[in-house]
Amino acid sequence: MHNSMTQKPHELLAETLAAEMDKVNDLIQTRMASEHAPRIPEVTAHLVGAGGKRLRPMLTLAAAKMCGYQGDHDIRLAATVEFIHTATLLHDDVVDESAQRRGRPTANLLWDNKSSVLVGDYLFSRSFQLMVETGSLRVLDILANASATIAEGEVLQMTAAMDLKTDESIYLQVVRGKTAALFSAATEVGGVIAGASEVEVKALFDYGDALGIAFQIADDLLDYQGDSKTTGKNVGDDFRERKLTLPVIKAVAQATDEERAFWVRTIEKGRQEDGDLEQALALMVKYDTLTQTRADAFGWATRAKKALEALPDHPVRQMLHDLADYVVSRLN
Amino acid sequence: MHNSMTQKPHELLAETLAAEMDKVNDLIQTRMASEHAPRIPEVTAHLVGAGGKRLRPMLTLAAAKMCGYQGDHDIRLAATVEFIHTATLLHDDVVDESAQRRGRPTANLLWDNKSSVLVGDYLFSRSFQLMVETGSLRVLDILANASATIAEGEVLQMTAAMDLKTDESIYLQVVRGKTAALFSAATEVGGVIAGASEVEVKALFDYGDALGIAFQIADDLLDYQGDSKTTGKNVGDDFRERKLTLPVIKAVAQATDEERAFWVRTIEKGRQEDGDLEQALALMVKYDTLTQTRADAFGWATRAKKALEALPDHPVRQMLHDLADYVVSRLN
Repeated sequence: MHNSMTQKPHELLAETLAAEMDKVNDLIQTRMASEHAPRIPEVTAHLVGAGGKRLRPMLTLAAAKMCGYQGDHDIRLAATVEFIHTATLLHDDVVDESAQRRGRPTANLLWDNKSSVLVGDYLFSRSFQLMVETGSLRVLDILANASATIAEGEVLQMTAAMDLKTDESIYLQVVRGKTAALFSAATEVGGVIAGASEVEVKALFDYGDALGIAFQIADDLLDYQGDSKTTGKNVGDDFRERKLTLPVIKAVAQATDEERAFWVRTIEKGRQEDGDLEQALALMVKYDTLTQTRADAFGWATRAKKALEALPDHPVRQMLHDLADYVVSRLN
Repeated sequence: MHNSMTQKPHELLAETLAAEMDKVNDLIQTRMASEHAPRIPEVTAHLVGAGGKRLRPMLTLAAAKMCGYQGDHDIRLAATVEFIHTATLLHDDVVDESAQRRGRPTANLLWDNKSSVLVGDYLFSRSFQLMVETGSLRVLDILANASATIAEGEVLQMTAAMDLKTDESIYLQVVRGKTAALFSAATEVGGVIAGASEVEVKALFDYGDALGIAFQIADDLLDYQGDSKTTGKNVGDDFRERKLTLPVIKAVAQATDEERAFWVRTIEKGRQEDGDLEQALALMVKYDTLTQTRADAFGWATRAKKALEALPDHPVRQMLHDLADYVVSRLN
């Protein structure tokens, strides 16, 4: 037995849901197989095998368990959300021309862009088959809408990058597409399949949505003030890649003419020079945007915890509560 | 009025289904819109606007009409299959690094690979929403399975290219993924939504499947013996790209040791020299594989026409019959 005081909430969730997660992993193994196209399991295993916290499938299992579900469709839906997540990672790596993912070379580097695009499509179609097997039109509706939000958010992120007109509402839409839409779909379908009440289903959606937003804002903030040893990222990567995230958006909104010219040059035109990152950070300090962004992340974590109040009193509920604290605790 | 004797079967179908196709086009316009990400309609309009024969949505409308359907889900399903088709074209162009599609520069060339990948994902998620709106789990099952066959076929095509172990059964699986799976799903869902009998639904699937296979075999054969003025392709493109299509597969299967060494060098190793295409064609003539491939295409067209016998006697049925003749008539 581990001491729950020293365990991280996702580790405690993983322990609690170990039996179900084993079934999810078995199902993932079975469904990613392809008799004639061995490239598919090769590429998928590279990514799925690399671990990751399997947070999304755990959210589905946790929601179903908390709502007293007894069947086995939660296993299918957990595998579904993991497949969707893996498919989007494969396509993201092509889009971002990434060389590393989870500390390992990306699939597009190990194989090629073709493999990443096509295996991503294959996993998405596999996820689609899995969700159809639940026989629930409502589940299909939720996941179809989440897929559209994800895809639209990705396109929006691509076109909003380098564009100083990107404001907080567009940022939020990008964040929903990038992270929160799959979190909220994961928790919502867990409740739907368990036959939870409308109030509970809504609460599960709200929890996943707020958790995902808190998670992504924290990630974006850590890009500017994280310890590269812990985050595995270099400070200022987003600035160098000219991504408009919350700390910059808030500084741009208050910029003087001179400061605006700085942002136009560095972000829109991409003509960055030595000392620009330091200047950008100085402007974020001047307008206190790092602190405000931190407050936003904590605000979303609070909303997530608040949403849980409508859900059954269950040990898993406390773990989800602690998980919301945990995703922003990296900011302390 | 046109004279039906001089009209091509797909033109006659387009005329017969004009009112429904207008609705399909309106729905496509509405659903490809994206308030915040204008890149989406831009890219989609480039491709959808380029025309193409809209054969797949017409197959759905034709199947529904022939089976006496009175509702409007056929419109949604026709838009669904066109979205799936457009999404696969966008991803194919990235995979093939194509520069031209339908005589215009491809989206990946006009914008970038990112846009093609992400807008493809967006259209696929939109198609998913449209099919959910029909409320038919059976339709969802058919389209989920077709999506998986398409994606697996694409990966298989990528890995089977340049591999002399590719035999006729793998070729058939690639062809189903590339072309026939969406044709057969298009006709099958038209029947399902119309409440056709099981025998009729099966016949519609068989028709679409055989039509798609005949179409693709004819396409592959024309690569070796077509008139570049009519096909818009240069003779031997597939050979130069080291694609294993039926005329080559049949020749490889009968190759002497010396001939096999030729195929290994030109297809597997890709070390092609002047005169190799002529040598490849000579081997196809030696083993009569162009004639055999032509016979295969006509055989599938016959199966397609045969399948129609189980369907209601209706003017549209004759058009579908003539369409099967038409797709192989290019070989005369």
